[in-house]
Amino acid sequence: MKGEEDHGSNSIQFLSGDEDHHGGVIVTIEDPIPMDPEIFASSLRASLSDWTQQGKKGVWIKLPIQHSNLVDTAVKAGFRYHHAEPDYLMLVCWIPDTPDHLPANASHRIGVGAFVMNPKRELLVVQEKDGRFKGTGVWKMPTGAVNEGEDICDAAIREVKEETGVETEFVEILAFRQSHQSFFQKSDLFFVCMLQPHSFDVQCQASEILATQWMPIEDYAAQAFVQDNELFDFIAKICLSKLDGKYTGFSNLLTTTSRGKKTYLYFNDQDASYLSASKQEQAS
Amino acid sequence: MKGEEDHGSNSIQFLSGDEDHHGGVIVTIEDPIPMDPEIFASSLRASLSDWTQQGKKGVWIKLPIQHSNLVDTAVKAGFRYHHAEPDYLMLVCWIPDTPDHLPANASHRIGVGAFVMNPKRELLVVQEKDGRFKGTGVWKMPTGAVNEGEDICDAAIREVKEETGVETEFVEILAFRQSHQSFFQKSDLFFVCMLQPHSFDVQCQASEILATQWMPIEDYAAQAFVQDNELFDFIAKICLSKLDGKYTGFSNLLTTTSRGKKTYLYFNDQDASYLSASKQEQAS
Repeated sequence: MKGEEDHGSNSIQFLSGDEDHHGGVIVTIEDPIPMDPEIFASSLRASLSDWTQQGKKGVWIKLPIQHSNLVDTAVKAGFRYHHAEPDYLMLVCWIPDTPDHLPANASHRIGVGAFVMNPKRELLVVQEKDGRFKGTGVWKMPTGAVNEGEDICDAAIREVKEETGVETEFVEILAFRQSHQSFFQKSDLFFVCMLQPHSFDVQCQASEILATQWMPIEDYAAQAFVQDNELFDFIAKICLSKLDGKYTGFSNLLTTTSRGKKTYLYFNDQDASYLSASKQEQAS
Repeated sequence: MKGEEDHGSNSIQFLSGDEDHHGGVIVTIEDPIPMDPEIFASSLRASLSDWTQQGKKGVWIKLPIQHSNLVDTAVKAGFRYHHAEPDYLMLVCWIPDTPDHLPANASHRIGVGAFVMNPKRELLVVQEKDGRFKGTGVWKMPTGAVNEGEDICDAAIREVKEETGVETEFVEILAFRQSHQSFFQKSDLFFVCMLQPHSFDVQCQASEILATQWMPIEDYAAQAFVQDNELFDFIAKICLSKLDGKYTGFSNLLTTTSRGKKTYLYFNDQDASYLSASKQEQAS
């Protein structure tokens, strides 16, 4: 907190905030010492009045979970929730009398499935201990969730290594599907990635995996859970088509934005000679 | 709340919860009447002890924002934040003495950009009032965020209609990019969608749009902001390649899962005769 104003016998401290690029302020309560909700309420009132006079728009308050005693005060002062992570809650208040332009919360979780074949036309598969296929004997492709800040291509490689011990290299995204209401109100994007194996010994490593093996792809595709599910059936057919050289998915290309950020572009690089040239330059 | 136990002169009410499919409980505080934090604390203690005896694993509490006075009590009882939306906070507590298998929070926001061409090789473009290109005179493709529960293909059509008044039909996802730390800790997936226009009169409708027009695609691609940004430059080249019939992106196909859920699969349907057959059956 910064600034003090003498109001008779009381001195009210203003909250200190960083300006954002949209005419707003971001306040982070960093002091680990517990704050009295009454004192916080006074500071918040004084600061809001100050920000209003300054013509500020969105005010963000990032409250670490150890300050959970201040949540109620912020809500009573007109703030609403924006998002939360295990260790903090982000609240926001839109000051102007206009519709807000506040960015939406994250809406999707991202999952990956890995299509990994050995030279004997065998598919790398796993049996899961828990979840939907528990106890069914179903062999499925390794799957998992993309971690915070992780690239899709890296997540597929990591999941295969964790669940089967096999080392791989990213080839292509073959297909993806979007589904809704998959977890509370949230949606889900699931990417099927083709990976090239660099090792072939399988070893069950992740705690959620019961078994892993290489399995003839036709046996995989013949399983009832694949055949009875239109989506899984299509994905198996796309994989088979890829195997026969008749399919092109999206490759990845590391690009740089004008702000110097590295970001992967996924696209069909077949016949894209102008881009392949750039890719070769990059590789050399 | 349900159940009462007589502890001397006090009667403690247990919290009522729905069981989930993973050995857990989901409690929603639905009663709009404010609850006293002391009473909530007693109920929560008694319920947690009960759930522990029952061998429950994850306990979820969904607290509508009008009950923000109970957040601190839940945190003091051992709960942490899981996620939040404007009107509620979801807290969670993992009871067993083992690493938790709780699902991760949503990690990505999804954006769309629309590539819409008329028969005169002109691209549909807009100028934005705010944000990064404010006052730069830059003409860009219509872009926007995918709403909660919205399909990528529908979001692209909606954004074009809102920003330009043009009616369109979804053709393909040409490419997408994944970037990180785009908003607080969250990541971002941005899909470039090709749409076929069904109308050609442009009309600026959205409050964030300054102007809209059809622009020769070569003039679009020649803008400094496109040429200086490797990513935008690649995307423009992919669009030009598509226009010349040399590129295939991912089409969408509505599929049904075994649980009867409708979900879009995005994939390259060129030469995928087995899937096209299914697609034709579906359309007829």
